[in-house]
Amino acid sequence: MRINGRPTRTIWPAADGSGDVEILDQTLLPHVVEVARLSCLADAAKAISSMQVRGAPLIGAAAAYGVCLALRYDPSDASLAAATQRLLATRPTAANLGWALKRMEAAVSPLAPPRRLEAARREAAAICDEDVETCRRIGEHGLALIRSVARKRADGVLKVLTHCNAGWLATVDIGTALAPVYLAQEAGLDVHVWVDETRPRNQGASLTAFELGQQGVPHTIIADNTGGHLMQHDEVDLCLVGSDRTTRQGDVANKIGTYLKALAAADNGVPFFVALPGSTIDWSLCDGVRDIPIEARAPEEVTRVHGRTAAGDVVGVDIAPAESLALNVAFDVTPARLVTALITERGVCAASEGGLLSLFPERAA
Amino acid sequence: MRINGRPTRTIWPAADGSGDVEILDQTLLPHVVEVARLSCLADAAKAISSMQVRGAPLIGAAAAYGVCLALRYDPSDASLAAATQRLLATRPTAANLGWALKRMEAAVSPLAPPRRLEAARREAAAICDEDVETCRRIGEHGLALIRSVARKRADGVLKVLTHCNAGWLATVDIGTALAPVYLAQEAGLDVHVWVDETRPRNQGASLTAFELGQQGVPHTIIADNTGGHLMQHDEVDLCLVGSDRTTRQGDVANKIGTYLKALAAADNGVPFFVALPGSTIDWSLCDGVRDIPIEARAPEEVTRVHGRTAAGDVVGVDIAPAESLALNVAFDVTPARLVTALITERGVCAASEGGLLSLFPERAA
Repeated sequence: MRINGRPTRTIWPAADGSGDVEILDQTLLPHVVEVARLSCLADAAKAISSMQVRGAPLIGAAAAYGVCLALRYDPSDASLAAATQRLLATRPTAANLGWALKRMEAAVSPLAPPRRLEAARREAAAICDEDVETCRRIGEHGLALIRSVARKRADGVLKVLTHCNAGWLATVDIGTALAPVYLAQEAGLDVHVWVDETRPRNQGASLTAFELGQQGVPHTIIADNTGGHLMQHDEVDLCLVGSDRTTRQGDVANKIGTYLKALAAADNGVPFFVALPGSTIDWSLCDGVRDIPIEARAPEEVTRVHGRTAAGDVVGVDIAPAESLALNVAFDVTPARLVTALITERGVCAASEGGLLSLFPERAA
Repeated sequence: MRINGRPTRTIWPAADGSGDVEILDQTLLPHVVEVARLSCLADAAKAISSMQVRGAPLIGAAAAYGVCLALRYDPSDASLAAATQRLLATRPTAANLGWALKRMEAAVSPLAPPRRLEAARREAAAICDEDVETCRRIGEHGLALIRSVARKRADGVLKVLTHCNAGWLATVDIGTALAPVYLAQEAGLDVHVWVDETRPRNQGASLTAFELGQQGVPHTIIADNTGGHLMQHDEVDLCLVGSDRTTRQGDVANKIGTYLKALAAADNGVPFFVALPGSTIDWSLCDGVRDIPIEARAPEEVTRVHGRTAAGDVVGVDIAPAESLALNVAFDVTPARLVTALITERGVCAASEGGLLSLFPERAA
């Protein structure tokens, strides 16, 4: 997608041929557009855990490049195992992290150490290119869904509600939940996006609003509390969110608060769609509420908000009494019963084991 | 309730006998405890619209004193009518505003102008004292409910989730939704409160956390997105919220996002209680979603967050791209079907016309 009109991915090998990797530093958006350079495994691990890169598909891509950065200094089995372990520990919920690391290991471990780095770079690049293609397909399948909802509306503008950021910035390019929105825009449909600000880290207000603005998609930021009211008053035609881990039976872990929007959608007859690449599906889990590991992050992410002062400085401000405790749960699980359909690169299916197996028959037990 | 151990109301006549009114300026909490002085009608109107005072019962009390401040300079019929009209326009949703103004008018308009100011002051003081008594009764009835829920728990701590601030700071003293919590604390029950931060104005993180902290009630601030997850994992025993306007059939307008918590409570079998004084009931309305007027406030309240810098200054920071629009809806309506019971000063009842009329039989048509 574009920043100031220029096509930009979220991660890429440095153009200087140094072997470094560059990323768009998402902790600084929307206030500052800055590229960060990753030179070693520690840089990659920190980029993921500190959320300079985030979003399940992009976490997978960043982990793949993290393996490259480790093998660059030491291509041994021990180095590969240590890198995999360290990267896997950065964040617990996104399934794509384990998926990408498994894929990297399969690509390089059979090779003699001197041949591993080149193979790792090829595999990481392939993961990135495939992610872009996957997102494009999700966009196409989602666009068909959007068209079917749009046909039911007599008036013009289709109103989509999204939570967190499952757009271009959560992937290598294009996005998952926002891919259908971008394709709808290309197709000339009038789309308006309600952007949940997505506390505590404000990925909606800072990332989704930024990327929609850069692509010229009309949007309005709302407090996370607002979606239910909008649905009660027929101001939402469909909800479109991403997923960090999807179970075999179609339960969906996504940014904390997604479950509340799914409840409101069900209560008001609003379709609730989840867009995800197959790499997000954890075929080993069934009951998501019980079994998906949920990340707890630092309480300060709740009580300290970062933004731009009138003078233009980006600072953190404390919003709560210094003595009060806070709890920061990063994800929740939306049970499959509240999901109207899943949108994958292979097509649209019911949020159920049968639905998923109809698209991924190779996963039948 | 207490600030630094000292009993403090939220509004009171200035002790210097000047006829001014003093309030705790809630726009500065929790960072600064400061008293603001209201000397004229314009001061009172601004205090309400800018939310230096907020919370339905306190809005009513502040409007009552606003009438006093107007009559102080001009006790004529025209002045009384103009003051009533101006104060009524400050905020549209809280029913107590109209209730208090009607009561003030009934108390003073039959009197000759020279006798009005003294009568108005008496009536405003009575409204405040009755509010405290009303809150105490709500607390007693709510405590009985809390005890009945607590008996079902084998372990110790009762976990209450609240949204926005319906505590001491939303009333003259004690609070509505938090009154049962304070009485439970006095009674020696172990209570822990999950405090929704309550975007966009953060009344939970700034006001509820502050007042619970000052009274020594254990509490944890959470992003508004978090309550559903906590309920899925049996971390909430009951929800307790306030109301800004309650319809004849028991629909409840309260801070935006209340509806989402009520949906999650229903989905997880968690009791959802609403505490309110009778003055909050609008007997003229039935269908709350359709008919309760919902306030829209400045979009900047969504995109600009106020807090304390490391240097101790309180500043506003912008969290979103400057070009992005925002929408700020201040309340939503929770349909009666999602409310387990209403807690009023007259007792506990079903959220229905029958339930409300059983406590307020004089309102039968």
